[in-house]
Amino acid sequence: MTGLNLSYVVVVALIAVAALAMAALFRREVLAAPEGTESMKTIARAVQEGAAAYLNRQFRTLGIFVVLVFGLLFLLPGDPGVRFGRSLFFLVGAAFSAGIGYLGMWLATRANVRVAAAARDEGRDPAMKVAFRTGGVVGMATVGLGLLGAAIVVLTYQEDAPTVLEGFGFGAALLAMFMRVGGGIFTKAADVGADLVGKVEQGIPEDDPRNAATIADNVGDNVGDCAGMAADLFESYAVTLVAALILGQVAFGQEGLVFPLIVPALGALTAVLGIYLTRPRPGENGLTTINRAFYISAVVSAVLCAIAAFAYLPDSFAQLDGGLGDHDGDPRILATAAVFLGIVLAGIILWLTGYFTGTDKKPTEDVAKTSLTGPATVILSGIALGLESAVYTAMVIGGAVYGAFLLGDGSVELSLFLIALAGTGLLTTVGVIVAMDTFGPVSDNAQGIAEMSGDVDGEGAQILTELDAVGNTTKAITKGIAIATAVLAATALFGSYTRAISDELAAVGADIAGETSFLIDIVSPNVLVGVIIGASVVFMFSGLAINAVGRAAGAVVFEVRRQFRDDPGIMAGTSTPAYGRVVDIVTKDSLRELATPGLMAALAPIAVGFGLGVGPLAGYLAGAIATGVLMAVFLANSGGAWDNSKKLVEDGNHGGKGSEAHAATVIGDTVGDPFKDTAGPSINPLIKVMNLVSVLIAPAIVSMTVGADANDGLRYTIALVAAAIIIGAVWFSKRRSAIIGEDEPARQGAAV
Amino acid sequence: MTGLNLSYVVVVALIAVAALAMAALFRREVLAAPEGTESMKTIARAVQEGAAAYLNRQFRTLGIFVVLVFGLLFLLPGDPGVRFGRSLFFLVGAAFSAGIGYLGMWLATRANVRVAAAARDEGRDPAMKVAFRTGGVVGMATVGLGLLGAAIVVLTYQEDAPTVLEGFGFGAALLAMFMRVGGGIFTKAADVGADLVGKVEQGIPEDDPRNAATIADNVGDNVGDCAGMAADLFESYAVTLVAALILGQVAFGQEGLVFPLIVPALGALTAVLGIYLTRPRPGENGLTTINRAFYISAVVSAVLCAIAAFAYLPDSFAQLDGGLGDHDGDPRILATAAVFLGIVLAGIILWLTGYFTGTDKKPTEDVAKTSLTGPATVILSGIALGLESAVYTAMVIGGAVYGAFLLGDGSVELSLFLIALAGTGLLTTVGVIVAMDTFGPVSDNAQGIAEMSGDVDGEGAQILTELDAVGNTTKAITKGIAIATAVLAATALFGSYTRAISDELAAVGADIAGETSFLIDIVSPNVLVGVIIGASVVFMFSGLAINAVGRAAGAVVFEVRRQFRDDPGIMAGTSTPAYGRVVDIVTKDSLRELATPGLMAALAPIAVGFGLGVGPLAGYLAGAIATGVLMAVFLANSGGAWDNSKKLVEDGNHGGKGSEAHAATVIGDTVGDPFKDTAGPSINPLIKVMNLVSVLIAPAIVSMTVGADANDGLRYTIALVAAAIIIGAVWFSKRRSAIIGEDEPARQGAAV
Repeated sequence: MTGLNLSYVVVVALIAVAALAMAALFRREVLAAPEGTESMKTIARAVQEGAAAYLNRQFRTLGIFVVLVFGLLFLLPGDPGVRFGRSLFFLVGAAFSAGIGYLGMWLATRANVRVAAAARDEGRDPAMKVAFRTGGVVGMATVGLGLLGAAIVVLTYQEDAPTVLEGFGFGAALLAMFMRVGGGIFTKAADVGADLVGKVEQGIPEDDPRNAATIADNVGDNVGDCAGMAADLFESYAVTLVAALILGQVAFGQEGLVFPLIVPALGALTAVLGIYLTRPRPGENGLTTINRAFYISAVVSAVLCAIAAFAYLPDSFAQLDGGLGDHDGDPRILATAAVFLGIVLAGIILWLTGYFTGTDKKPTEDVAKTSLTGPATVILSGIALGLESAVYTAMVIGGAVYGAFLLGDGSVELSLFLIALAGTGLLTTVGVIVAMDTFGPVSDNAQGIAEMSGDVDGEGAQILTELDAVGNTTKAITKGIAIATAVLAATALFGSYTRAISDELAAVGADIAGETSFLIDIVSPNVLVGVIIGASVVFMFSGLAINAVGRAAGAVVFEVRRQFRDDPGIMAGTSTPAYGRVVDIVTKDSLRELATPGLMAALAPIAVGFGLGVGPLAGYLAGAIATGVLMAVFLANSGGAWDNSKKLVEDGNHGGKGSEAHAATVIGDTVGDPFKDTAGPSINPLIKVMNLVSVLIAPAIVSMTVGADANDGLRYTIALVAAAIIIGAVWFSKRRSAIIGEDEPARQGAAV
Repeated sequence: MTGLNLSYVVVVALIAVAALAMAALFRREVLAAPEGTESMKTIARAVQEGAAAYLNRQFRTLGIFVVLVFGLLFLLPGDPGVRFGRSLFFLVGAAFSAGIGYLGMWLATRANVRVAAAARDEGRDPAMKVAFRTGGVVGMATVGLGLLGAAIVVLTYQEDAPTVLEGFGFGAALLAMFMRVGGGIFTKAADVGADLVGKVEQGIPEDDPRNAATIADNVGDNVGDCAGMAADLFESYAVTLVAALILGQVAFGQEGLVFPLIVPALGALTAVLGIYLTRPRPGENGLTTINRAFYISAVVSAVLCAIAAFAYLPDSFAQLDGGLGDHDGDPRILATAAVFLGIVLAGIILWLTGYFTGTDKKPTEDVAKTSLTGPATVILSGIALGLESAVYTAMVIGGAVYGAFLLGDGSVELSLFLIALAGTGLLTTVGVIVAMDTFGPVSDNAQGIAEMSGDVDGEGAQILTELDAVGNTTKAITKGIAIATAVLAATALFGSYTRAISDELAAVGADIAGETSFLIDIVSPNVLVGVIIGASVVFMFSGLAINAVGRAAGAVVFEVRRQFRDDPGIMAGTSTPAYGRVVDIVTKDSLRELATPGLMAALAPIAVGFGLGVGPLAGYLAGAIATGVLMAVFLANSGGAWDNSKKLVEDGNHGGKGSEAHAATVIGDTVGDPFKDTAGPSINPLIKVMNLVSVLIAPAIVSMTVGADANDGLRYTIALVAAAIIIGAVWFSKRRSAIIGEDEPARQGAAV
């Protein structure tokens, strides 16, 4: 193993440790800020306790599942030592993902009150700094843990690293998916429920302390938008890195296990730069500041990566240790071009999302205008906007994939590695992206605490409103970037999928002539059926997630109504609502609702792969990727545009607050909530979980289908059990489908 | 050409002529019914004139386009005689499609008043009979013209028939797509516009004569739900038949050009039976009557087809003249099984659609319940229902494809033919299906005329309301069947696609090693990009169609408001609104809005195929089929469930008419209008147009990519021109995007 430059990997590991040290430094800065009034502290504490209680409960539930998967992973074929490493790093990936999520929540619930206090006592710039530094902690921790994990695997397992990395990526993606779905259901059930009773029925403002769901709503911002999002971005980071390292070995030999680590390590350095650059200039819009930091750090990353490629890589494939020795391109140029593609892709998505969801752009203005003809036209125009804008984003991502494909110049293996490398280019911006994203829920929560405590008014309140609006746009942008990483990583993982199949075929020495389940021609009807099933899973998953929010929100509505009815003192402001009861209800409902979509994501590839074969499973993945990217962006952008068109009307357009037009946009916003914060963002980890499950099971499918150990009975049994569990879970969730809107007495019985 | 049993084809042609004669007979029956009062006749005449004016204008516009395509088709490579036949039968297919559409509209606008008169003077059963006989005319004409066209092609061109049939199917699909999109925009723009001003703003009932948009609304039912739907079902019939005949020759040799004609010919016979069977028993629900007719004719078809297969086909492939001589299955059993699959598929879709959209079923009841928590939850629950139900339908269709694939037992060619044969099995039910579908708009219109004239009340009015509700469900079922034919035909057409490629490769004697654009492996990144683009086109098409309705409806809203404002006598009932102006506005807007989605459908495969190659184009088609079936059913079922949940509330549930809950469901219904009647049903012809365009251009792409005539410059130029036209059309339609909800003065300027 002379070819592997372990010294470089050690340097990467050290950079990772440095990133974690930066995270600790930023954390101290945040916690050092003052916490505001007693009343603000009390509210913050309630939110902290609610969020911690939810996450602890969620981790306990998921713990059982993780241990189960740990065992199942170990049952798959392969060398026992490597298998053990894979299972072990599955646990590490899951733990890192959960840890980042917990950190994001923990810090956000402490930063929110500090942002509110800074806005109250010190002004906009200090408030913005606290919010962005909080994001910096999560961003640096994401980058640090992702790099550290990957570097340790490469150092420990060297040429066996790819297989072990599959476990690391899978652990990260699986946990992130559950946290995204569960947190997404929690946050939107509480939000929608609070709005339906508070704003719509009782006409009291958002975050009014008389609304029993307000604490739950604020808890939701932290467990969904902070914890779920942080885990999701960590997972995007880890899986992209994993895909690049797996394919790097095929295309670039041993350098391929090092260079993909160098690129994001440089990104870690520039992320620190970006976070320090985020100093608002006087009178500047917050979004401008953040965008500037993004673009500067992107350009610096690009330059550093080009330097690294030319310094580190040889000028011909023949000089690589392993890889595609006979290819006649220049590895330095190809690698640089691929990384550039990824960085440019991030920039275009940033701009495109801003265009479609920004309050000062035509698309959202058009949606706001349709409020003059009522809620139906608001819904229709928002849906049409989402459908169309999804196509542009999908085309841009597809263009990047195709660009990397063309760079590969006829070699599919090289193309796939370059696609993964473009993914690592995207990753160089993740530090700043996470910081941007965390900004959103922290400002949202700060506004909530300020409103509930009543201690922040005048200029302080206005500052928080402005920061909240900036946060909405940064959240939408992050979703676009996250789904782009999903497509790049998933496309690249096709390379490991086919390699897993051909390796296993070679190992069992089987002849597959006449085995149609091995066809991966897209024109074969069974592969096409796979494509249809893959696309179906995305539709089903989205439908289930939206329904889950509706049901859980219904439970919130009835509980809040009950409290108003049973204790008239609440409305009068003389007694305090039982906030904890609503938090409890949403916690239980979210964890229960989580199961069906989660099981479906993990088990559907197993049912298709073992039941129909590896060809249809490839079709399945292609269908899921294509429909997934469109559905994810559609849901995110429709939701973002509705949210901001409501803000436009609230700013005094088309009749302003309290008008019919405003009511119409509030309805649009409520529809958009589960679109943009539950179903949409969950599709990103969904795609990766399904891809990694497929890569992991491919050898087992092959060995059960052909060769000496072929066992059709066992194969079909596995497929049927997986399918039966999915059908059972869906059937079970249907039994609960009528809760929302049900007559109250019946509901009371069901909820208690 | 000894093998071709022309005598059987002549019998089929005679059955086709007999079906047309039946259509003429039914038509006389319908026209013989009394027309009601003078006032009813006057209204009916206005609707007749408006509908005829719209269709004539549409045909003039499309005529230019059809002539253009006629010429372009002739430019494609191939034998001049066959090419001319293909272009000629393209015209015939287009003319038949247009003719069926015109007939559907013509008769429906005459039947509506007769149904109203029968309900008024004679009771439910005679009214239902007139409505169903009208459907019978269209159904028999669809079946007759489809069979006749195909039989004439087979008789004339014999072994060259497949190529000529491509033209016939393409003409039918292209015209149908434009009629579906244009008619769909017309009908929903008028409907939504009328509802927004009438029901929502002015609080006057549907079809109130004071609303200037009522005549346009009734015209819309005829040009969209009748003409568009009839053309669409004719296209489904023709394309499925074409796919079966093309693939039949490959798999079954010369018998393969005859047997696929025999199956639907038997269907024509059983359709007559079904139509005569539709005699409501006393006190029976209209839907029960229709379902009984469907199931009886389906069972009779199945039995007759089995008899025909065993009588006509030999018991081994070796005895076939041509085809897969060495296959060891029994053609009689395989053919019977495939036809059964198709018939069973039709039955399951009938049941599934009824379950998800029926007023007496849990899913729609649940959507109605959510009206208690306002419009946002109605929208969310309807969308979730649509997303989930689409998956079940897609799974059932995918299951049928997979079943036919398994029957093929390892031979992809045979599988594809059996899939097409399953499609012809579905076709045996088309006669009854068209009759069921036409029932919907005719009853809807009858109710409109009754309401406007004020001459039908009491029991008569109640009968019409009941018939209208039955019509809603039959319409939803038809859409499910139509999309199933799209998937089966499109999947089967993959066979002709790959054959076109391999034939042309053989002709140019080219070596494609290293040409990645010829890869059709789904794991190749460029093919995956094709899948993403294919899925994107479905999203874009849906978004454009929904937006188009929104814009055109906005124009209606402002015109009706203007009339109310300028002439107070309208509201007082002393003066008549200018109905014609609204019809004119909707006519112009629909034809203008039609262009963008239409051009995209026709040109996107050209851009992808010439630009990226035949492999990515195959991916493109797979992506479009998979996403298309899901999107089509999602849109149809969400819309159907919203419509019927509104009916549930109107029947007195959850507060009944005039309650908050009712207002919430009216919003849901309005959102559902363009979903279920514009975007959703247009996806069916969209898929087929794109497939046929791809089959037609495949040889040209091959010859421009490899071989002696390779010309990359020309190839990329064609791709760029196609892409530029699409982008230009989208950009142009965006310029109009702000019309709905715009300030009235600005809009007035734009509309006039």
